Amino acid sequence: MPIDSTVAFLGPKGTFSHAAAITFFAAHKTSSQTPWEMRSYSSIEDVFASVERGDVRFGVVPVENSTEGAVNNTQDCLLEAAVEIVGEIVIPIEHNLLAAPGTKLSSLTTIASHKQSLAQCRQWIAKHLPALTLKECVSNAQAAVLATKEEGVAAIAGEFAAQTYGLEVLVSSIQDHSHNSTRFLILSQPGQGLPDRANAGSSKLKTSILIATDNKPGALFRILEPFNALEIDLSKIEARPSKQRAWEYVFFIDFIRGGLDLSNDALIQNLMTKLREETSSLRVLGTYATARQPSASEGS
Amino acid sequence: MPIDSTVAFLGPKGTFSHAAAITFFAAHKTSSQTPWEMRSYSSIEDVFASVERGDVRFGVVPVENSTEGAVNNTQDCLLEAAVEIVGEIVIPIEHNLLAAPGTKLSSLTTIASHKQSLAQCRQWIAKHLPALTLKECVSNAQAAVLATKEEGVAAIAGEFAAQTYGLEVLVSSIQDHSHNSTRFLILSQPGQGLPDRANAGSSKLKTSILIATDNKPGALFRILEPFNALEIDLSKIEARPSKQRAWEYVFFIDFIRGGLDLSNDALIQNLMTKLREETSSLRVLGTYATARQPSASEGS
Repeated sequence: MPIDSTVAFLGPKGTFSHAAAITFFAAHKTSSQTPWEMRSYSSIEDVFASVERGDVRFGVVPVENSTEGAVNNTQDCLLEAAVEIVGEIVIPIEHNLLAAPGTKLSSLTTIASHKQSLAQCRQWIAKHLPALTLKECVSNAQAAVLATKEEGVAAIAGEFAAQTYGLEVLVSSIQDHSHNSTRFLILSQPGQGLPDRANAGSSKLKTSILIATDNKPGALFRILEPFNALEIDLSKIEARPSKQRAWEYVFFIDFIRGGLDLSNDALIQNLMTKLREETSSLRVLGTYATARQPSASEGS
Repeated sequence: MPIDSTVAFLGPKGTFSHAAAITFFAAHKTSSQTPWEMRSYSSIEDVFASVERGDVRFGVVPVENSTEGAVNNTQDCLLEAAVEIVGEIVIPIEHNLLAAPGTKLSSLTTIASHKQSLAQCRQWIAKHLPALTLKECVSNAQAAVLATKEEGVAAIAGEFAAQTYGLEVLVSSIQDHSHNSTRFLILSQPGQGLPDRANAGSSKLKTSILIATDNKPGALFRILEPFNALEIDLSKIEARPSKQRAWEYVFFIDFIRGGLDLSNDALIQNLMTKLREETSSLRVLGTYATARQPSASEGS
């Protein structure tokens, strides 16, 4: 199979990352018209590395959950890796209690899931199944596999995991916040882009940049000033340790504006010039069509 | 023992939180001159709850690591809990390979530790002990307990854990970044303060506030504007999901300035007035003496 139809996702099979990869690439044709080949990787770091090395054409990683916040591993990899962000997709996170077909709720002894999923269903568990043992797994999919093998074990995972591993949904939608969703990034080697990149013109475009500030009073304010002066909508700002020196930070900034080719946009060129006056370190991570955010209006 | 000499920390015994609690309170006398009683709690949420209920006088929780960034649990608890921040302390995080006395490096089969500590020693392990199995534990202290019980298991933990559990340091200082340290917060019920609060006058003071922004373009910029106009040094800003609605954020802001009683400070009153014009939601989390940051100049 030719390399340009391969996609790396954070596995194992049945994760929300897998669902995100399938959903995103169902809407994007391969350049060779062969079907996409989805490859499971065991860590976010491995997905980045496979894209950097060119083992796969694209990678799909979670970057932010609407309740839990940023995925630090992904942000830290973006700091280091030579990859470009070429797309994003938002997937609603619906947790279900899954077990082997025929299992009764009353026969359960253990609920297995990733720590974050257990946390996201804490109130439901406390109300309905407070006596069960909670078991932390490295992923929801691993918990699903456990539920297929061990009697009395239910997994908390998405419906896609139920389909993947042949489990039954005992109780659906048990997460405590109804407006829970996760944003995923689509990565490629720099300059590759999506096969149907030209079609993105109809969507709003988002640009992600990475800026290091001096450790001086007002440094962050001076970086935000050009956005305000030029009336460019800053949709997101997130601080992370620089890792170069203790208590120094870098900022991930997303803004909505402009065409795919930033060098053709005078306003953006003006912004970049002003930003470069304030920082020695500015990297454009990518410009891509914004995702529809399915749960934005479903706040509870 | 009277309630006013009790301190809750994120346990079990021997954690860096325990070391932080002992170090901080060694420098602060109890009001009754009885020794501080340190109580171990199994989660950050439990430390907050014990302070809120008045089961203990103070609580000690990690809030930020210089390499790994913010501790999300603590930030999320600050969003909800009726507590005040009355102090902070920065503890250098030095990881050591610990094992039962007499254990040889060559007889090890497993390295156990908290996921974050394993991550912070990743390069060292890959270079020196690549063949060993890595085992994730819920805390470094739990890993230390495991090392006392199971043959062939070494734990990655601080020297304080070695002392607490009678382990030997096989290799010291194995963390990949030499400038690793963690900042801890000291919490109390609102209005209680430290027993020797009046003595804090000689230190620089930090104020922590929590602000929710409207989801409108430029909202963050308008919140930073008053700090810039009044030349108040913003030492930290951190975004977290509001949990009220998907993709809405609150900001944790720290600034250096002012006396313990903010209502006596005209500049701060001016700042608060300007901030309240921009947000419907502003909470002062506390004003307290800044910690000396031991590793700030040790960047590698």
